Amino acid sequence: MTYCLGIVTKHGLIMASDSRSNAGYDQVNVVKKMHTFVQPGERVFVVLTSGSLSLTQSIMTLLRRDFDAGKGLATAPSMYDAARVVGEQVRRVSDIDRPALERDEYRFNVHLILGGQVKGQPPELYLVYPQGNPLAATEESPFLQIGETKYGRPILDRGIRFDRTTLEEAAKYALLSLDSTMKSNVTVGPPIDLLAYPVDELNVTRQRRFAADDPDLAKIRNRWEQALRQAILRLPEVRFRPAGARAATAAQEESIQLVEPPAGATTGETSASPAMVETSQPPQSQHSQQQPKG
Amino acid sequence: MTYCLGIVTKHGLIMASDSRSNAGYDQVNVVKKMHTFVQPGERVFVVLTSGSLSLTQSIMTLLRRDFDAGKGLATAPSMYDAARVVGEQVRRVSDIDRPALERDEYRFNVHLILGGQVKGQPPELYLVYPQGNPLAATEESPFLQIGETKYGRPILDRGIRFDRTTLEEAAKYALLSLDSTMKSNVTVGPPIDLLAYPVDELNVTRQRRFAADDPDLAKIRNRWEQALRQAILRLPEVRFRPAGARAATAAQEESIQLVEPPAGATTGETSASPAMVETSQPPQSQHSQQQPKG
Repeated sequence: MTYCLGIVTKHGLIMASDSRSNAGYDQVNVVKKMHTFVQPGERVFVVLTSGSLSLTQSIMTLLRRDFDAGKGLATAPSMYDAARVVGEQVRRVSDIDRPALERDEYRFNVHLILGGQVKGQPPELYLVYPQGNPLAATEESPFLQIGETKYGRPILDRGIRFDRTTLEEAAKYALLSLDSTMKSNVTVGPPIDLLAYPVDELNVTRQRRFAADDPDLAKIRNRWEQALRQAILRLPEVRFRPAGARAATAAQEESIQLVEPPAGATTGETSASPAMVETSQPPQSQHSQQQPKG
Repeated sequence: MTYCLGIVTKHGLIMASDSRSNAGYDQVNVVKKMHTFVQPGERVFVVLTSGSLSLTQSIMTLLRRDFDAGKGLATAPSMYDAARVVGEQVRRVSDIDRPALERDEYRFNVHLILGGQVKGQPPELYLVYPQGNPLAATEESPFLQIGETKYGRPILDRGIRFDRTTLEEAAKYALLSLDSTMKSNVTVGPPIDLLAYPVDELNVTRQRRFAADDPDLAKIRNRWEQALRQAILRLPEVRFRPAGARAATAAQEESIQLVEPPAGATTGETSASPAMVETSQPPQSQHSQQQPKG
């Protein structure tokens, strides 16, 4: 499994990916899923990949070969055309490999995210499906995810806005989204690749790989968990008011009330030290079911 | 789709469920997925259901009929035995309906969560699979989810501890977990049913249904979004230090740095007013892909 995401705001792009690849549970490898194509001052493309590693490697090899020969992504006149170039290579590898895969009941399964900018045009972000068709991120839906997308989505839904979120904030959201996913799902794992692309830079100069033991990654995780607990304390409190010894009826609906927390819970923070909050390490694993129908 | 969860701590149980049922996108109904069985002073069971509504209704009808006749859940000597009683009815309905369903390529798809207490024993929490076998929550894994489980899981992973989380806090986590899921997935929807069961109460006196327009639910959602943004501000800041005009290489890994936020970001909160934080409504919808393999 994989988790990659791209965020586009008016300030530029944030691209992030995990690095875990597995074929069954007993074969876990580290694979870089972030690929850059740069003509400084002219064009930048960042591609994130999920799906069968054999297939995504082929797609990237073909894209790179064309790019280095001055074709494909090297000449695409717009981001839309670049997304179509990526989609063409998806279809080419599909033509080559899909029949043999499907004969043995493997699915042709690749998803790619393409972010970048062509000189003179705004940065854009696309998702390319296994069928090769592209989907663009929009101002209303300014992020795209591939792979194990659900765990890391609520934080993005709550926080990312095309016209308000700075690139620095978007980078924090991306790290937290990836960290939340890694915590809840063992098939997504470090290192994390993070790339920031400010509008009109037309180069790639800001990227970092966070290893599993990266102290900055550990710090942001621990501080986030502390901050979440602080945030929970500040929410309206849930109060239980037993409604007598009868079985529950509609008349007892207010046996659970929300009230403002006592003063101590909100004013105890004047030193603003996250260390004030008791830290507790929640359990790491719990069985979850695959999405049944409700 | 559905999202239900149960949490067990040393203080008791929190049970919560959404109410959306759909058969295709154009037929959305409200269905109560929380069912209680009470013998005051003797035993309490709360069952949450996900899966085909026709099947879960049958299971609940059979459980209720036995219970009202003084059999089944009415006599189970322990929570484990009660989970087996539920599993037996799952298997009974499977025997009745599975062949006809599978002939038309429908899956036999039901998951149930059973929480409760039998007098003289501690409260327990079980998940019952479509095959009828039970899984118990443990002190290390003190919550169980069914349905659309992934969106709402990171907040539980970060916060719930069997021996530290109060029942009131657990209720907040449950509401936030459900709200996050509703925000990210339209197939999970209100009303939300919330039930709190304190150890040894042996009755159901604390429950509440939150409608879509419940002002308390809106308040907790808005305050949570404000608190998350505040929390993001307090995290170490991500700083980008451009590494020159060359293409990215390993030598540039520190072009993204994490540094403490400026004093204003952490000390500006002495009034502890969440209203200080600029509120922005993030976009609600974004296309997401089903879990490809990484």
